[in-house]
Amino acid sequence: MTVRPPGSLVIVGTGPGDPDLMTPATAAAIAGATDLVGYGPYLDRVPARGDQARHASDNRVELDRARLALDLAAKGRHVAVVSGGDPGVFAMAAAVFEAVEEGDPQWRSLDIRVEPGVTAMLAAAAAVGAPLGGDFCAISLSDNLKSWTTIERRLAAAADGDFVIALYNPASRARPHQLGDALDLLHTRKPATTPVLFVRAAGTPGCTVIEATLDTVDPAKADMRTLVIVGASATRRVGRWFYTPRREGARPSASKPKASSGLATT
Amino acid sequence: MTVRPPGSLVIVGTGPGDPDLMTPATAAAIAGATDLVGYGPYLDRVPARGDQARHASDNRVELDRARLALDLAAKGRHVAVVSGGDPGVFAMAAAVFEAVEEGDPQWRSLDIRVEPGVTAMLAAAAAVGAPLGGDFCAISLSDNLKSWTTIERRLAAAADGDFVIALYNPASRARPHQLGDALDLLHTRKPATTPVLFVRAAGTPGCTVIEATLDTVDPAKADMRTLVIVGASATRRVGRWFYTPRREGARPSASKPKASSGLATT
Repeated sequence: MTVRPPGSLVIVGTGPGDPDLMTPATAAAIAGATDLVGYGPYLDRVPARGDQARHASDNRVELDRARLALDLAAKGRHVAVVSGGDPGVFAMAAAVFEAVEEGDPQWRSLDIRVEPGVTAMLAAAAAVGAPLGGDFCAISLSDNLKSWTTIERRLAAAADGDFVIALYNPASRARPHQLGDALDLLHTRKPATTPVLFVRAAGTPGCTVIEATLDTVDPAKADMRTLVIVGASATRRVGRWFYTPRREGARPSASKPKASSGLATT
Repeated sequence: MTVRPPGSLVIVGTGPGDPDLMTPATAAAIAGATDLVGYGPYLDRVPARGDQARHASDNRVELDRARLALDLAAKGRHVAVVSGGDPGVFAMAAAVFEAVEEGDPQWRSLDIRVEPGVTAMLAAAAAVGAPLGGDFCAISLSDNLKSWTTIERRLAAAADGDFVIALYNPASRARPHQLGDALDLLHTRKPATTPVLFVRAAGTPGCTVIEATLDTVDPAKADMRTLVIVGASATRRVGRWFYTPRREGARPSASKPKASSGLATT
């Protein structure tokens, strides 16, 4: 009787796009894999290598892709599931664990790990300054997997809590109205002057930014590569940047620095 | 008359600790600096180099540190402000823009940019599975710079929106009661069986995890290196991992895979 050598599965994110934003740990995990599984455009970010099998798919079969990866690992392969951004944020890691939960009980004893990465909202925030400087939340506007009622509930809660809000998956051809509806809801609950930033292709050389407010924003200008940041009440512009102060009640002040404050933070 | 060459300022994050989680872009930004400014333990993660000036400080003078960095850049130096994690998440980027807003008007024309990094909650999530797989929010429990009333308002909103909640800065010697108070508040608004995960030193070889629920959690087991994740209603365990399904209403099911679902997501 032969004992099958144990396989492994690592779920990684390439970051927002620029190879310089992929961590060395992720690059090493990809290099160590016998099989790469992922959505085609993410796999295309990884240089091809003759001794590595590539299993590319389109972006509408995440659970099938997860099962394929688990099946390969169960057969002794060393599999890297390749997402964009961070694999745990609106990406493949949750899909893999969904597949584990629903699948072959032996999958629960597989060697599975997740490598963190730079998720889109961090690259988008860095591109415009520091808008996530206060408490913030991340909401996917995709209603393929959850109801629009749930999304509305979360948008309302995020407004009521005065969080900075990062909106993932704001628009696609199949979902043209969601972002407009979301911004309309926020407009009823937040100041009309609240900054709204559309950051497209953050973390790539082609990054572009559209600045607006809840009063002036045009949702038609977002596409599936856009990350939308809606400010908290304190989010403001300074020079050509946007940021949210850490200090509550911080007000734009005169140009002289205050006397040394000894302000504490952690 | 001599023209002073223009300086620059880049704000970077070293990631959670492991050098393999620092992006190449951040490493390059640090390598290109003439001056490093930062909290001592973060600077210690960067190898010393004779031609690079190091300006270390303790962690209670962020605004002074930001002003020093801006002043050096205005004098023509190339400055890297070194944070841990991602510099835009409860770290130095917002402090720099606060200092710009309050400081010398000429600072507004400086070459300032932010490099994104891997923030603690992503490393903590990866260490336990995919708990941030659904909509989530990040709240700092430090009430040095904002009121506890604001923190309570945000915790309540996060519970009402059924977000997964990442708690930064859960405890320190100066703030021993905040985490217990926060968890008590969440206990009144969320199911008692909600998973609560204390991930200490995430993204380092010494990472440890304590698993509990809102009913059983002991806040005394957190320290300033702990990141706390409180689940949403759907967050659950599978095997030795915790995750939040992307699909609303997903229920633990029998062990047989469902027929191919063609489930769509973005």
